Amino acid sequence: MDNRIHNFNAGPATLPLPVLEKAQEEFLSMPGLGMSVFEISHRSSVFDEILAGTQSNLRKLYGIPDNYRILFLQGGALLQFSMVPINFLRGAEKPSDYIVTGSWGEKSVKEAKREGEVNIAWDGKAESYTHTPSPSELKLSGDSAYIHFTSNETIEGIQFASEPESGKVPLICDMSSDFLSKLLPIERYGLIYAGAQKNAGPAGTTIVIIREDMLERVPENQHSMLDYRLLAEKNSALNTPPVFAIYMVKLVTDWLLDEIGGLKKMSKLNSGKAKLLYDVIDQNPEFYRGHACTDSRSKMNVIFRLPSEEQEAEFIKEAEQANLHGLKGHRSVGGIRASIYNAMTLEGVKILRDFMLDIASRQT
Amino acid sequence: MDNRIHNFNAGPATLPLPVLEKAQEEFLSMPGLGMSVFEISHRSSVFDEILAGTQSNLRKLYGIPDNYRILFLQGGALLQFSMVPINFLRGAEKPSDYIVTGSWGEKSVKEAKREGEVNIAWDGKAESYTHTPSPSELKLSGDSAYIHFTSNETIEGIQFASEPESGKVPLICDMSSDFLSKLLPIERYGLIYAGAQKNAGPAGTTIVIIREDMLERVPENQHSMLDYRLLAEKNSALNTPPVFAIYMVKLVTDWLLDEIGGLKKMSKLNSGKAKLLYDVIDQNPEFYRGHACTDSRSKMNVIFRLPSEEQEAEFIKEAEQANLHGLKGHRSVGGIRASIYNAMTLEGVKILRDFMLDIASRQT
Repeated sequence: MDNRIHNFNAGPATLPLPVLEKAQEEFLSMPGLGMSVFEISHRSSVFDEILAGTQSNLRKLYGIPDNYRILFLQGGALLQFSMVPINFLRGAEKPSDYIVTGSWGEKSVKEAKREGEVNIAWDGKAESYTHTPSPSELKLSGDSAYIHFTSNETIEGIQFASEPESGKVPLICDMSSDFLSKLLPIERYGLIYAGAQKNAGPAGTTIVIIREDMLERVPENQHSMLDYRLLAEKNSALNTPPVFAIYMVKLVTDWLLDEIGGLKKMSKLNSGKAKLLYDVIDQNPEFYRGHACTDSRSKMNVIFRLPSEEQEAEFIKEAEQANLHGLKGHRSVGGIRASIYNAMTLEGVKILRDFMLDIASRQT
Repeated sequence: MDNRIHNFNAGPATLPLPVLEKAQEEFLSMPGLGMSVFEISHRSSVFDEILAGTQSNLRKLYGIPDNYRILFLQGGALLQFSMVPINFLRGAEKPSDYIVTGSWGEKSVKEAKREGEVNIAWDGKAESYTHTPSPSELKLSGDSAYIHFTSNETIEGIQFASEPESGKVPLICDMSSDFLSKLLPIERYGLIYAGAQKNAGPAGTTIVIIREDMLERVPENQHSMLDYRLLAEKNSALNTPPVFAIYMVKLVTDWLLDEIGGLKKMSKLNSGKAKLLYDVIDQNPEFYRGHACTDSRSKMNVIFRLPSEEQEAEFIKEAEQANLHGLKGHRSVGGIRASIYNAMTLEGVKILRDFMLDIASRQT
């Protein structure tokens, strides 16, 4: 094989090498089966084991209680932006609360408004989405159908340090870009959803963790593939699920449990990696300027500007020559974005850190 | 690797071995890229090439004209059962026509009824879905929003020999289980959809071929992920598409073009494979009883009964010992189902044929 690069893509993103190697090894034939994981029936005991194993891994990693169901759906977070209000806002006599901290939050509001009343509890757009709200800034409805927030905004690189206070209102979170990056107080959530393609696996499945009482709120007669209750009742196999993507999530969660040692350790590693890069930014204020306010900095997506766009273009060009790829910032924010998800190694981040120090020393 | 079995699963189904070998070879790093296809950005030129290459392959295979768009969506045919009426029946002043020839057709009607009037143009249920309708049996509305049919019913093993006459009404087809199995008069269709996991690739993407005038019929303000027009406008990358599944469809269509030599040849091979099995059934009427009427027989799913359920169980048991797997019929029909999609080799079918002859000669 070719040498693998250091891949700082925002998602789909780098995957743990041991996971890829294991999948490659079994690619033509799973042990003792004589067929590829692509070729097994989703009504077979082999698939049942993969599905149950993945669910069990997630329960172990997060300590998910029995009154939560774990689903593997399709369509990414964007379909969840619609499924959440279709299931919980359509026909409701209450508004929903949305906390908007970036581009993904904005998109979730757009879909929700098709189904009912949306109260914007906070919107950071006027400040270019540079921080998450403090508790006192939130204007919650008090008795809403649910409160929705985005735990980590991939494009702006800001992340909630802890969950917003939701009282008895169900808390719903788009966790696509920091899912599995740290421990969580699961019992504070009514529903968590996450596209797999950052920390959990390949593009092609969306993980939904839903508290059972939420399922009881789903109105009758929804379209089958949009109905959380039916999807939960059929254990994600209402129709053919994305078998291979789920299998890959199984391998990634195996790796988190067996190689990393759980989410507490993963979180510590992630904090350490992020600190390496933010320290360079803080120690070179004449050259680097972070997008996020210090207390809202994402540990997944480190976003910063250089003094000029020319220097940013040069940074990206030289980085690629140094085998550091995927660093161009999203077009709406510009600058540099280093996505350092679970699978990005400490070694890879150190190489980027050294590169950042080097280029700053040469240009200042 | 272990020896590969002969896999007669109904879907996910066997894939061409050269496709699996190629994907395995590139699994850790695509040529010259230094990363796996799982890890590439869906906003990269590499992904653009994969997507464009897959679309181009499909255009070549079917001769798809320029006024059709080719999309790669998620959620399987079941989500299409909803998207079709959401996009074309919701708010329409016309009914839709549904031709119901099996279990999948039944399911498509259930979702359509949520959105508007459904005229059942024909329903084969009373005859246990053993044949497709003759043109004179169809009770079409005349001026409907669309006519929907299922080209091949996987569970009952019946297949349309040619398209129903639709006049100027858009013809919409669930082609999940015979997509890419033969040439088609594409221009007769308004929309074709197919889950990939039979002939086209792994579970995880749904191919939609849609005529551009259909896109103009889509009402404003649909949920983004359910809106054909928006999905076409964004060339299937409104959000992160299932990159790996699309890549696999690329490899399968490369194989169809380069190894098989196109759909005319594929169709001939498929007819030959099916004939081998139906001949055994016809020549052993005391032992085998086909489910489908002769003129409606599926070339993809060959379904038959044995004199008793005990003999069927014994058949399946002995078959597995002979390395022939996935032959148990769907619980709703019973008996034996041999799914012989494109990737099932003539050699594999011959082994099954010989097994069928052997067991019949021993038990009659």
